[in-house]
Amino acid sequence: MLAPLSHRIHGKRHLQLYRSSPKNNGPKSWRIREAIPVPKPGPDEVLVNIKYSGVCHTDLHAVKGDWPLPSKMPLVGGHEGAGIVVARGSLVKDVEIGDYAGIKWLNGSCLTCVQCRQSNESLCGDATLSGYTVDGSFQQYAIGKAAHVARIPKDCDLEAIAPILCAGLTVYKALKESGARPGQHVAIVGAGGGLGSFAIQYAKAMGLHPIAIDGGEDKRRVCTELGAQSYIDFTTSEDIVGDVKGASGDGLGPNAVLLLAVSEKPFQQASQYIRSKGTIVCVGLPANAFIKAPVFDTVVREVNIKGSYVGNRQDTAEAIDFFRRGLIKAPYKVVGLSELQSVYDLMLEGKIAGRYVVDTSR
Amino acid sequence: MLAPLSHRIHGKRHLQLYRSSPKNNGPKSWRIREAIPVPKPGPDEVLVNIKYSGVCHTDLHAVKGDWPLPSKMPLVGGHEGAGIVVARGSLVKDVEIGDYAGIKWLNGSCLTCVQCRQSNESLCGDATLSGYTVDGSFQQYAIGKAAHVARIPKDCDLEAIAPILCAGLTVYKALKESGARPGQHVAIVGAGGGLGSFAIQYAKAMGLHPIAIDGGEDKRRVCTELGAQSYIDFTTSEDIVGDVKGASGDGLGPNAVLLLAVSEKPFQQASQYIRSKGTIVCVGLPANAFIKAPVFDTVVREVNIKGSYVGNRQDTAEAIDFFRRGLIKAPYKVVGLSELQSVYDLMLEGKIAGRYVVDTSR
Amino acid sequence: MLAPLSHRIHGKRHLQLYRSSPKNNGPKSWRIREAIPVPKPGPDEVLVNIKYSGVCHTDLHAVKGDWPLPSKMPLVGGHEGAGIVVARGSLVKDVEIGDYAGIKWLNGSCLTCVQCRQSNESLCGDATLSGYTVDGSFQQYAIGKAAHVARIPKDCDLEAIAPILCAGLTVYKALKESGARPGQHVAIVGAGGGLGSFAIQYAKAMGLHPIAIDGGEDKRRVCTELGAQSYIDFTTSEDIVGDVKGASGDGLGPNAVLLLAVSEKPFQQASQYIRSKGTIVCVGLPANAFIKAPVFDTVVREVNIKGSYVGNRQDTAEAIDFFRRGLIKAPYKVVGLSELQSVYDLMLEGKIAGRYVVDTSR
Amino acid sequence: MLAPLSHRIHGKRHLQLYRSSPKNNGPKSWRIREAIPVPKPGPDEVLVNIKYSGVCHTDLHAVKGDWPLPSKMPLVGGHEGAGIVVARGSLVKDVEIGDYAGIKWLNGSCLTCVQCRQSNESLCGDATLSGYTVDGSFQQYAIGKAAHVARIPKDCDLEAIAPILCAGLTVYKALKESGARPGQHVAIVGAGGGLGSFAIQYAKAMGLHPIAIDGGEDKRRVCTELGAQSYIDFTTSEDIVGDVKGASGDGLGPNAVLLLAVSEKPFQQASQYIRSKGTIVCVGLPANAFIKAPVFDTVVREVNIKGSYVGNRQDTAEAIDFFRRGLIKAPYKVVGLSELQSVYDLMLEGKIAGRYVVDTSR
Repeated sequence: MLAPLSHRIHGKRHLQLYRSSPKNNGPKSWRIREAIPVPKPGPDEVLVNIKYSGVCHTDLHAVKGDWPLPSKMPLVGGHEGAGIVVARGSLVKDVEIGDYAGIKWLNGSCLTCVQCRQSNESLCGDATLSGYTVDGSFQQYAIGKAAHVARIPKDCDLEAIAPILCAGLTVYKALKESGARPGQHVAIVGAGGGLGSFAIQYAKAMGLHPIAIDGGEDKRRVCTELGAQSYIDFTTSEDIVGDVKGASGDGLGPNAVLLLAVSEKPFQQASQYIRSKGTIVCVGLPANAFIKAPVFDTVVREVNIKGSYVGNRQDTAEAIDFFRRGLIKAPYKVVGLSELQSVYDLMLEGKIAGRYVVDTSR
Repeated sequence: MLAPLSHRIHGKRHLQLYRSSPKNNGPKSWRIREAIPVPKPGPDEVLVNIKYSGVCHTDLHAVKGDWPLPSKMPLVGGHEGAGIVVARGSLVKDVEIGDYAGIKWLNGSCLTCVQCRQSNESLCGDATLSGYTVDGSFQQYAIGKAAHVARIPKDCDLEAIAPILCAGLTVYKALKESGARPGQHVAIVGAGGGLGSFAIQYAKAMGLHPIAIDGGEDKRRVCTELGAQSYIDFTTSEDIVGDVKGASGDGLGPNAVLLLAVSEKPFQQASQYIRSKGTIVCVGLPANAFIKAPVFDTVVREVNIKGSYVGNRQDTAEAIDFFRRGLIKAPYKVVGLSELQSVYDLMLEGKIAGRYVVDTSR
Repeated sequence: MLAPLSHRIHGKRHLQLYRSSPKNNGPKSWRIREAIPVPKPGPDEVLVNIKYSGVCHTDLHAVKGDWPLPSKMPLVGGHEGAGIVVARGSLVKDVEIGDYAGIKWLNGSCLTCVQCRQSNESLCGDATLSGYTVDGSFQQYAIGKAAHVARIPKDCDLEAIAPILCAGLTVYKALKESGARPGQHVAIVGAGGGLGSFAIQYAKAMGLHPIAIDGGEDKRRVCTELGAQSYIDFTTSEDIVGDVKGASGDGLGPNAVLLLAVSEKPFQQASQYIRSKGTIVCVGLPANAFIKAPVFDTVVREVNIKGSYVGNRQDTAEAIDFFRRGLIKAPYKVVGLSELQSVYDLMLEGKIAGRYVVDTSR
Repeated sequence: MLAPLSHRIHGKRHLQLYRSSPKNNGPKSWRIREAIPVPKPGPDEVLVNIKYSGVCHTDLHAVKGDWPLPSKMPLVGGHEGAGIVVARGSLVKDVEIGDYAGIKWLNGSCLTCVQCRQSNESLCGDATLSGYTVDGSFQQYAIGKAAHVARIPKDCDLEAIAPILCAGLTVYKALKESGARPGQHVAIVGAGGGLGSFAIQYAKAMGLHPIAIDGGEDKRRVCTELGAQSYIDFTTSEDIVGDVKGASGDGLGPNAVLLLAVSEKPFQQASQYIRSKGTIVCVGLPANAFIKAPVFDTVVREVNIKGSYVGNRQDTAEAIDFFRRGLIKAPYKVVGLSELQSVYDLMLEGKIAGRYVVDTSR
């Protein structure tokens, strides 16, 4: 079924983002390249035949170049790639040819620095990022450090699991970081989007009560179907702060807030409805946005505002295990890799509920 | 030595703040009242003959009325009162007449709400605040809830311990909240002031390495004498961020920052020099100030910004124990209660290094 | 509906345990007393008209006197009493006449000692124990400290909630103490009994995967219906250690073990199947039993063995909230208070699956 | 100064333990081998020219073969080796030739299993152990996995730091595991021995109050000089439990106990004097010993008994940093490598206060 030797592997189609201007803030365009050479894994790397790859807001930021972190150019984007290991380096022992594996945002890290030693691999100063500082998963054959590729059990569906590798993992880790315990309330801002729809399901699987916040009736339906305990429509609510507090049972506000939004306002509003001693977890990365909160209220109510980035390798294994047990079934749509631009277009319009997945074979 | 019966106690002198205008933002003045009746403790209260009381920035905010929390009027200020128990209510069993006790900011709380049940008494919705919502310790006889008055061992000096009851307790609790472990670095912004000088000493006693940040050579001397590992003068440094990072050993920044400052700027600068995954603890309460931090950096470096208010009853006992062992010897000056206005004047000019304590007998 | 004034309340029937011998280890007998005077609450107490009370193994230990802690004699047993507040002391503000309330094992504590200050009320040196050191809930009118009686929402069924007040609370707190996170495995030893059947349900509601361990097909059926992921029958298993490890997914053993058993052997076996760095939580109290584990294995696998007693007031509120949401539906049977001896007889024979509840009106 | 190329390095002297009987429990003898070939590091390894190596009780267990874990034979013992990196594999980037480095107990681990991913490298199923399952540091040239060798700053003394690499690291990690916070009491059983003398100093540097427990006046002197707050002589105390509780300030017992003893009795006594909710950390590994504690007391006092093995890579860096700052100055004696047997003899007689270090050059 699989090409048994790495030298017999041929990439059929690669999608690459070329920048037409050398400046970070210039316009970009992308085109499909076919039949380019397949890379060969180094001694501590594996080569993964990507079957499906989820599309993330980060991919759009890579195209737009509006983050303060410069990306590699030319670049193959993508960091939610699920596929099959087809080659491995000489030092790799615990991943076999034929195993399912995932290329995720964190492509590699040094494993020995002060952050890596404490399992904070995503904070490693030498971390490489798939689809940003190294080529990612919008292609048929992608390279990942063996220590970092996600181990995907064979009973998992590669199509459905792709978005778990970033969206799922990110919200799962954020929920852990929130410190919310089973039985407590967590408000999810942007609950109807790609990250949000996973967050609702992970929250429920973790025994939390999700309060979904988003705009519109379509998203209300999605959130409710996924199991949100309540839904607050920021486009129609006349008192968001009061409504969120009211949804938290005793009226004192949720124990935690997950900010998955891609606009700035919620980052400055959450401290008004969070419970005293509660935790606001920032996850979404709207360009040029600021967290802002009054000092007085933050201090006397002991509010905690923290950033949560992508999960580490252990978080990855755990996030996948929740999926494998059938607890995470967030909606997604599959399109061909060649249709990626249309996905970006929908994303720019804020019209995506759930997640898009591209099939690299078409 | 002590008046044995509560009906024989006579207050000799009370300092009260009267507001001449009914509005919160109007001008205030205060005057000394003498020979006013001594209050009688309720069944769950004690009456403390205050000997000494520390002067805190909060007292100044009570005078100015520039916090969003309204205070009682007329008001006896003060919440760092150390004295001797001279009367107790019928239900009080674990405090004896003659015991040393302290009136601290948290005068009482319900002890049964969701916050009190989790030892977060300062977040109780029914908490009463000495020298703010109830009369405080700028008088010779003050009332406190028995469950909340600080237990002061007999081998402690009442004069020196007064500032521990708020300044010491507050920074000790903030250091606990910072999550910094022995051997790690903590930057202390406002290290030469009343809170800061305690923070340096508590940090050292807890095995932390304090990086002192303040302005001027006088404060450099104070901080260095108290044991700061390094001192950064914000009035002369050309690169505060670089200097703070450089003082943290490996150049990655301190593991924690304590914001004790009474101006807004440091609240917006700390996120630039904090170590990734580090914790910024906001303690100081500059009027109308805001915390502000870029979303992107906060997320990808997993920075934690949190507020820390006054300590709970257990923190109080612990903070006092550090003092009792001789580990906390921050500088203070004693003046008569009648000289309080001059202390406020110095405070307004930012000229106080260490803490002022008033002697209620003069 | 309720007797509006406390002086109009008449106890119709009280069950009391009299000891016929003055020695702790002598034989005991009990008899029903009728029409005895109803007690009057002190200033910080409430009087609860008990409607239903669960029967716990501890009640049997009180009868047998085989614990190293002496009980009051004569004694009214019972500490899972659910009823209605009919009188309250002068200081009680946050419990109203007519509220639902529960008398639980911890009847009162000092609220100011080093343990109470840290929310460990059950470790208070002055704690009073319902049905052991003070009269309990096997009667129609029982006294509790207002700060400690369980607050029961009005939409809860008093019959079904009774066993939550000790059995439910105890296993919920033990699951918290286990440190197991959502998605992890917890082995429950004695899963088919009164505590165990609650533990399975709480574990599931908290996102954990319960591995039930007990004996016989009846208990297999109970455990499976309650949602245990797997069941290991210690009466037929030829390799309990291997079977428990095998049920934990990756074969490395469960992350936590709850020892609810009333015999000694499992306390000495759990360290063989617990995962390295895992936590064994001891809850059951077999008389004269010892925990035993090899030093070498405990150290090199970093096993944690800890005791967990009853929950505190916050745990109580949380355990009740899980019940209120319909997540806890463990089986129970209701009999009249006068049939208590037959319940003890079944308990002695180890024949109880689930929990018995007595109706105090018959 | 250093041989620049690995092929020019010649081992002058290796100490190896040969077992004369193939059985684990048979007699052993050791002899010195000279001029044996120097090993060549693999791609992810470094070669360290060992200058000094501490002698640990574990080395004696390796000789006696009385642990349930079989060792490699023939074997070069030693796992506290401090020296200079003289060669490195092709993949090693963050260790330079000429750097100071340490060979510690954990020679290597997989870095990708569920334990390694959570920074519990010592619990890795594929961990290799210096001087036990791979050759250790009782030789002039030893191999270590680059990710695991201790990074020793150039301003450290190689002679004095050697015992930090196991004894220091182990007690530092155990103190972290104890959960004791600055200002709390920790009892150290075996405080005058090799581990204990470090434990006293680390405890003090971490803001803890050490209560030293050991036997005899010599050890009293050592413990007191190192800074123990109190000393309890188990050979003369008539009430060890009472004496330990008495030394804890409020009489409720220490918050934590470190069991460094090499006999069984203290492992069964500690639960009598530990404070309720306190933690007993087992570190010492007496052969065939058992932890034993009454179930009743463990549960109702919520005692925590846990094993703590060697520290991970981050603990290593931290333990070394305390040493580098001059906070750890435990006593040691230096002898030639050829005198190792006499050190073992003293160890068997229990006559060692502090630690022995061998100089590999003689």
